Amino acid sequence: MSEIRKHYFLSEYCIIAEERSKRPSDFAVADEGRGKNGSESCLFCGGAEENTPLATAVYKNGKIYSDTPEKRVRNWDFRCFPNLYPALSPVPDSPKHEENGLQAEPGYGFHEVIVESPLHGRRLEDFSNFEISGLMQVYRDRTCSYTSRENIRYVSLFKNSGEKAGASINHLHSQLLALPFCPPLLARELKVIRKIEKCPYCAIFNLEKTSSRLISENSEWIAFTPYSSMGPFEVWILSRKHVSSLGDCSDELLFALGHILKDILKSYGRVLGNPPFNYMFYQLSEAPEYHLNLRLLPRISINAGFELNTGSYINTISPERAASYLREDLTHGE
Amino acid sequence: MSEIRKHYFLSEYCIIAEERSKRPSDFAVADEGRGKNGSESCLFCGGAEENTPLATAVYKNGKIYSDTPEKRVRNWDFRCFPNLYPALSPVPDSPKHEENGLQAEPGYGFHEVIVESPLHGRRLEDFSNFEISGLMQVYRDRTCSYTSRENIRYVSLFKNSGEKAGASINHLHSQLLALPFCPPLLARELKVIRKIEKCPYCAIFNLEKTSSRLISENSEWIAFTPYSSMGPFEVWILSRKHVSSLGDCSDELLFALGHILKDILKSYGRVLGNPPFNYMFYQLSEAPEYHLNLRLLPRISINAGFELNTGSYINTISPERAASYLREDLTHGE
Repeated sequence: MSEIRKHYFLSEYCIIAEERSKRPSDFAVADEGRGKNGSESCLFCGGAEENTPLATAVYKNGKIYSDTPEKRVRNWDFRCFPNLYPALSPVPDSPKHEENGLQAEPGYGFHEVIVESPLHGRRLEDFSNFEISGLMQVYRDRTCSYTSRENIRYVSLFKNSGEKAGASINHLHSQLLALPFCPPLLARELKVIRKIEKCPYCAIFNLEKTSSRLISENSEWIAFTPYSSMGPFEVWILSRKHVSSLGDCSDELLFALGHILKDILKSYGRVLGNPPFNYMFYQLSEAPEYHLNLRLLPRISINAGFELNTGSYINTISPERAASYLREDLTHGE
Repeated sequence: MSEIRKHYFLSEYCIIAEERSKRPSDFAVADEGRGKNGSESCLFCGGAEENTPLATAVYKNGKIYSDTPEKRVRNWDFRCFPNLYPALSPVPDSPKHEENGLQAEPGYGFHEVIVESPLHGRRLEDFSNFEISGLMQVYRDRTCSYTSRENIRYVSLFKNSGEKAGASINHLHSQLLALPFCPPLLARELKVIRKIEKCPYCAIFNLEKTSSRLISENSEWIAFTPYSSMGPFEVWILSRKHVSSLGDCSDELLFALGHILKDILKSYGRVLGNPPFNYMFYQLSEAPEYHLNLRLLPRISINAGFELNTGSYINTISPERAASYLREDLTHGE
């Protein structure tokens, strides 16, 4: 089982999740052999359901099913199952321990894979509005399912797309980790939000809606490059309505979210040539002060010694210029 | 000129440093063509001094010289000059500005390259003790030189080695950025240190000196894998003596630092097969409470959506096991 360790003196954490068989020589080439698998041997493809752990939720024609040991659900739209190499595992009631002032606790939590199509090679930007809207509903369902579990403090929902963005299998999927601690990034934000006693994201919405960093908007959401972008072409998607998590989103809100997300991914593909990217949901279902947002980051620059040393970033394109390229593309690109 | 922008509501920063000619298509292949140059066209090689900006400090046989427009110093040991594409530039007295609550200031500061050998292809771990000790003295000199400049709050000194660690030129060098703000990572540490009113690093030294995470030690320094390592084979080098920055280090301390640093790099080379890596000095010359430390991180795992979403890390090898491999290598490897 993995272990969650606290920093010597900061409220920061790492999860030590050893893959048992790894030897140092495996680390030496760790990045070389990843993400190269073709569809022939893909674990995530429709028809290969026996090769994964039992699915916890299978979405098919708008209904939810589960695998049983006797029978795996076939012909699904979206399929969720525990990660075969989980960073966290569902063994509750494990005690924290402290030794010489060092704090650790067993790696309790959940680590799930969300496979987003049975077909190998599909891309999110090619989804129909119906399909992408269905996926946003899956994201909401899975978030809610884990939020309500005992001792879960945060649900991290994200996509790694492409080898340089950390994807180890190149079949369309996202991941969810349900954590027993509030991560430092969110804790820091929440502390400031509680101090200023009004929602900074609502103010950001109003500011960016008419700024030169706006890329796309619909009745419910805006997409923009943030004023202090951590890397080239970083994009935030933010809702007009103050909602704290996906669990607070209506079907209409999710439909509009899927639509604007697809726009940005299409534009990334055309302007940047299908870059590797990550997207991450920032949400706190138990803190109504928090304002859900989705952030996208193409992985076209490397965080190097300066970023590791300072926690600050050097960005070689202004958010205004990045926005103008994406906006221009969305206006004329199709 | 670049711009330093503050986050919407957190005390975090990014530097917008546009390379003027870049178009979106350059970003699409930004990582592909980097770090590939052979020695024939290398800007950093001895003999090619005309191809860089004028050197600010040239170290040669233990003395310091400067280039003049008429004459560049030849046959040097270490050579420091302004980065040709600086993230920050020395134009003082520029005003901060605020617009719609968004804060920015001109990118004042210094960005220097430290070339560590005139010979292409040399590696730090092959330096003699005399050479590595000389380099540590250069690090101290350059840190002190920038610490004393007006409106400089932090000197970031780091090495990017290998393309995956952010190096764009594969000739042995480090970089120094002198910043007009205290970076959030250091500010957060300092806040806690001032609150607990004793040095946590002195406690860490005492704890790790006898722990299973110890890799190497000499009379002045220990090298160990930190309890909550952010990635595989992360190593910290920490001094027995409480010093706040390189400026506080005696020649003897620097000699011993060079020696232990070389040990770790040698061991990385043998155990991990010459991985790309970063090392960074954490130092605060104006805060005597702070305790200088040097951190090394091989770039053999990718920070993906989870790390971006939470600021926490998943590490697939325990620090204890990583330390045992490096320790074993240093005992028997040579």
